[in-house]
Amino acid sequence: MIITKQHLLDTHERISDYIHRTPVFTSSLINEIVGTEIYFKCENFQKMGAFKMRGATNAILQLSNTEKEFGVATHSSGNFAQALALAAKLQGIKAYVVMPSNAPEIKKAAVKGYGGEVIECEPNLQARETTLNEVVNKTGAVFLHPYNDYYVIQGQGTAAMELIEDYADLDCIFAPVGGGGLLSGTALAAKHFSPNTKVIAGEPMGADDAWQSFQKGEIVPQTNPNTIADGLLTSLGDKTFPIIRDYVEDILRVEEEEIISAMRLIYERMKLVVEPSSAVALAALIKEKEKYQNQKIGVILSGGNVQLSKLPF
Amino acid sequence: MIITKQHLLDTHERISDYIHRTPVFTSSLINEIVGTEIYFKCENFQKMGAFKMRGATNAILQLSNTEKEFGVATHSSGNFAQALALAAKLQGIKAYVVMPSNAPEIKKAAVKGYGGEVIECEPNLQARETTLNEVVNKTGAVFLHPYNDYYVIQGQGTAAMELIEDYADLDCIFAPVGGGGLLSGTALAAKHFSPNTKVIAGEPMGADDAWQSFQKGEIVPQTNPNTIADGLLTSLGDKTFPIIRDYVEDILRVEEEEIISAMRLIYERMKLVVEPSSAVALAALIKEKEKYQNQKIGVILSGGNVQLSKLPF
Repeated sequence: MIITKQHLLDTHERISDYIHRTPVFTSSLINEIVGTEIYFKCENFQKMGAFKMRGATNAILQLSNTEKEFGVATHSSGNFAQALALAAKLQGIKAYVVMPSNAPEIKKAAVKGYGGEVIECEPNLQARETTLNEVVNKTGAVFLHPYNDYYVIQGQGTAAMELIEDYADLDCIFAPVGGGGLLSGTALAAKHFSPNTKVIAGEPMGADDAWQSFQKGEIVPQTNPNTIADGLLTSLGDKTFPIIRDYVEDILRVEEEEIISAMRLIYERMKLVVEPSSAVALAALIKEKEKYQNQKIGVILSGGNVQLSKLPF
Repeated sequence: MIITKQHLLDTHERISDYIHRTPVFTSSLINEIVGTEIYFKCENFQKMGAFKMRGATNAILQLSNTEKEFGVATHSSGNFAQALALAAKLQGIKAYVVMPSNAPEIKKAAVKGYGGEVIECEPNLQARETTLNEVVNKTGAVFLHPYNDYYVIQGQGTAAMELIEDYADLDCIFAPVGGGGLLSGTALAAKHFSPNTKVIAGEPMGADDAWQSFQKGEIVPQTNPNTIADGLLTSLGDKTFPIIRDYVEDILRVEEEEIISAMRLIYERMKLVVEPSSAVALAALIKEKEKYQNQKIGVILSGGNVQLSKLPF
């Protein structure tokens, strides 16, 4: 599927009643530190606390009425689980979420809080897929992938669309990359609505499969990720990778201390609660700041769902 | 001095080039918990991170050019110290800040970072006043009190003015009370711009001098305050107290765990970094929520300058 400008326009119109148009924040102090003008798209203020709400909503709204009757299913222990549960609730349909039995209770509770049904499985890839298949076979629910899905990608792209609408002449947009839903959506939004805006990804050194894939020209799966940025542990998919390969300018890797230091800036100077994954894009920009002096830069703060007791400062 | 509607209008116009018009946030989840519609005035996003910037700016702008040449001086280890330093810097004048020698280094550094000169003194009231007098005598700087000053009070009142301008039909506005600058300014703003809006204060049980003064009808000084809300440790002044006595509807006291629990809600659900003092107003509303069902309520989030390493969760 080739995602066109019209696809993105239709997506934004379709989901706009069910998502927040999030604000764009600036910080003169961070601008001074980096030597550039930064526009932060605050998806931490999105419904359920992350951009994932956009893609989940779009994917659900694409379903036929018959499909909706049986509900939707996914496997996720992160923000997509909650996003799907809430997006399904807002459409009055059922959401089944397969989660590893060792996922934090707080995350299971959040999915249930949004009305989702949690189905636990053993904490390994095979159990996850088997359990998901069982759920789909038993309930007739439609499986929606957390990121490797064109409708999800379109939905995630609407964050950058809004940012570009607000600030038309950005030189670059920085976004974090995990499975690539946000990054590929952002790249398509820039391509269609602001072709001179380069899209650059930040990725943790301890989970650098996207960087490796980007270098090698083919998907390199993520094994044993090790990073505080717990939203960025997954591998790219066969739908997200080609878009990233073709339309993303660069992927920059950052160390853990660089992520924490960027996160601290966002808390201390912007007074925003963000999750570590959100700080990865800013960390990448800061690391390479010499290259971006005096530019106008968009940074997507992807979400704010952090366990307060586990803040790294 | 009687502060009129025109005083407040003039103040707002005078300072508006030097402060942020802060946004008003809402949270459907917190509304559900409290059973009311809450409009949060986000002074954590104010310049230097707290409403104090408003009063400091107004007090400085009232000075004659001759006075400005000699600069301004204050004693504070809190947000007013930083606010005065930054407000003075923006007017190109000098600020001297007397701080106890045991004040956290990070706070001294913040004042210096804004270009203020820190003068350390022994950590007791007498040393503070003696040192301040020395500074004033030596430099000719004008002493500006952190809250017991009509121009400061007018400046702090502009936060509620803006909130009322944005949401005209509020039933109540909740604000925290320490020395009473914000509370008295808020009460005057409501009296002049929305006379049907009641102003209610939240105060920590461990620093309840305002509540005691309010009950007794005269100023009861604060001794040995003990609360996480480190912006609310001071006593009312002879300028703030009469305004509070005459125009504030009620003062509600809250326990430490109620403050922390309200603070957690603001972090987790609103994704906002606020200092403990900011959570006191919401804590008071939650404590007495039965009385405020289905009302429209303003809550002033006073500031966001918190030491991240000392978060209570």
